[in-house]
Amino acid sequence: MLHLKAPTVPAWLQRVQSNLDELLIDHAHCEKKAAATAMNLMFAYVDQVPLVRVLADIVREELEHFEQVLDLLSARGVRFRRLRPTSYAQRLHQLVRKQEPHRAVDRMLVAGLIEARSCERFDLLRRQVPDEPLRRFYDSLFESEARHHATYVRLATCFAPEEEVFHRLDHLAQCEAEILTQVEPWVRMHS
Amino acid sequence: MLHLKAPTVPAWLQRVQSNLDELLIDHAHCEKKAAATAMNLMFAYVDQVPLVRVLADIVREELEHFEQVLDLLSARGVRFRRLRPTSYAQRLHQLVRKQEPHRAVDRMLVAGLIEARSCERFDLLRRQVPDEPLRRFYDSLFESEARHHATYVRLATCFAPEEEVFHRLDHLAQCEAEILTQVEPWVRMHS
Repeated sequence: MLHLKAPTVPAWLQRVQSNLDELLIDHAHCEKKAAATAMNLMFAYVDQVPLVRVLADIVREELEHFEQVLDLLSARGVRFRRLRPTSYAQRLHQLVRKQEPHRAVDRMLVAGLIEARSCERFDLLRRQVPDEPLRRFYDSLFESEARHHATYVRLATCFAPEEEVFHRLDHLAQCEAEILTQVEPWVRMHS
Repeated sequence: MLHLKAPTVPAWLQRVQSNLDELLIDHAHCEKKAAATAMNLMFAYVDQVPLVRVLADIVREELEHFEQVLDLLSARGVRFRRLRPTSYAQRLHQLVRKQEPHRAVDRMLVAGLIEARSCERFDLLRRQVPDEPLRRFYDSLFESEARHHATYVRLATCFAPEEEVFHRLDHLAQCEAEILTQVEPWVRMHS
């Protein structure tokens, strides 16, 4: 369902469990970036009204998650701060083809793959994290990230035939799995 | 309350009333840009959590308005499309000082002045437009734009003493009134 080509390695879970506060800070940044991505896509394809409405809903939902993470940080007494991101998203964005409509297809699929990876990791976290409020939070996000993944794949089919989209998704998912083996081993959602 | 230095000239109302559909298309773009502005400010000052929360609420509210304008366009059978913007916002943004914290103050105040001008014009529209659903819509937006103006002025005081902020607001409002006399005479919210 998530089209991922490789599962998250156990080392990731071990690493992030050693510093769940830092993971939460990074997670807040991820929600903010997800909102910004959907907003940028709205701007880029603003004359396609049905697409714009779907993206506007994603922006609003991601911002709600962002504020929920801020609430959790505040409840844990952790100060939100800037964090250096890994090269994961940047490497994925480098795969986006330059010419339209290929560019639109790739931007949607890259956004969709990032949602898929987050979703897969929320699933690990909701099952493995000892902290009960955190576990419930990850559980609540799991479903919406899966939905966003499916939405982005569907939006890609506004710009190319379904067969072409799924062929490209297959390729980009393969790249995503390879990129994950190369990114910095920090405490991040996408490390 | 809105800190504007000059009222909208009657010619503006006459002009936009000749093409309310085009005004609505431009209005949709304005709501989208207002959401993007708040999002950019969130990114720029992301370590100031109370400010970020207020801005996140503005983003969500502007996106709701954006979708409401799309609904109205759809109900009127008008296709949403790209429109060339006037130079109003660009000219205002050129007044933003480059050095922090002045830059933050100016970005908040410019955002606040744009909200103020929209608010003043929604007030004209809610009183003068013959179309009843449109009039009700402009009436519903009037209050939130006034609130956003006040919010942005308050946020500016996170970066400089109140006296300095109001002194700068006075200057920028004077510039805004002058800019309005120079912008392109098209059917736009800020023409």
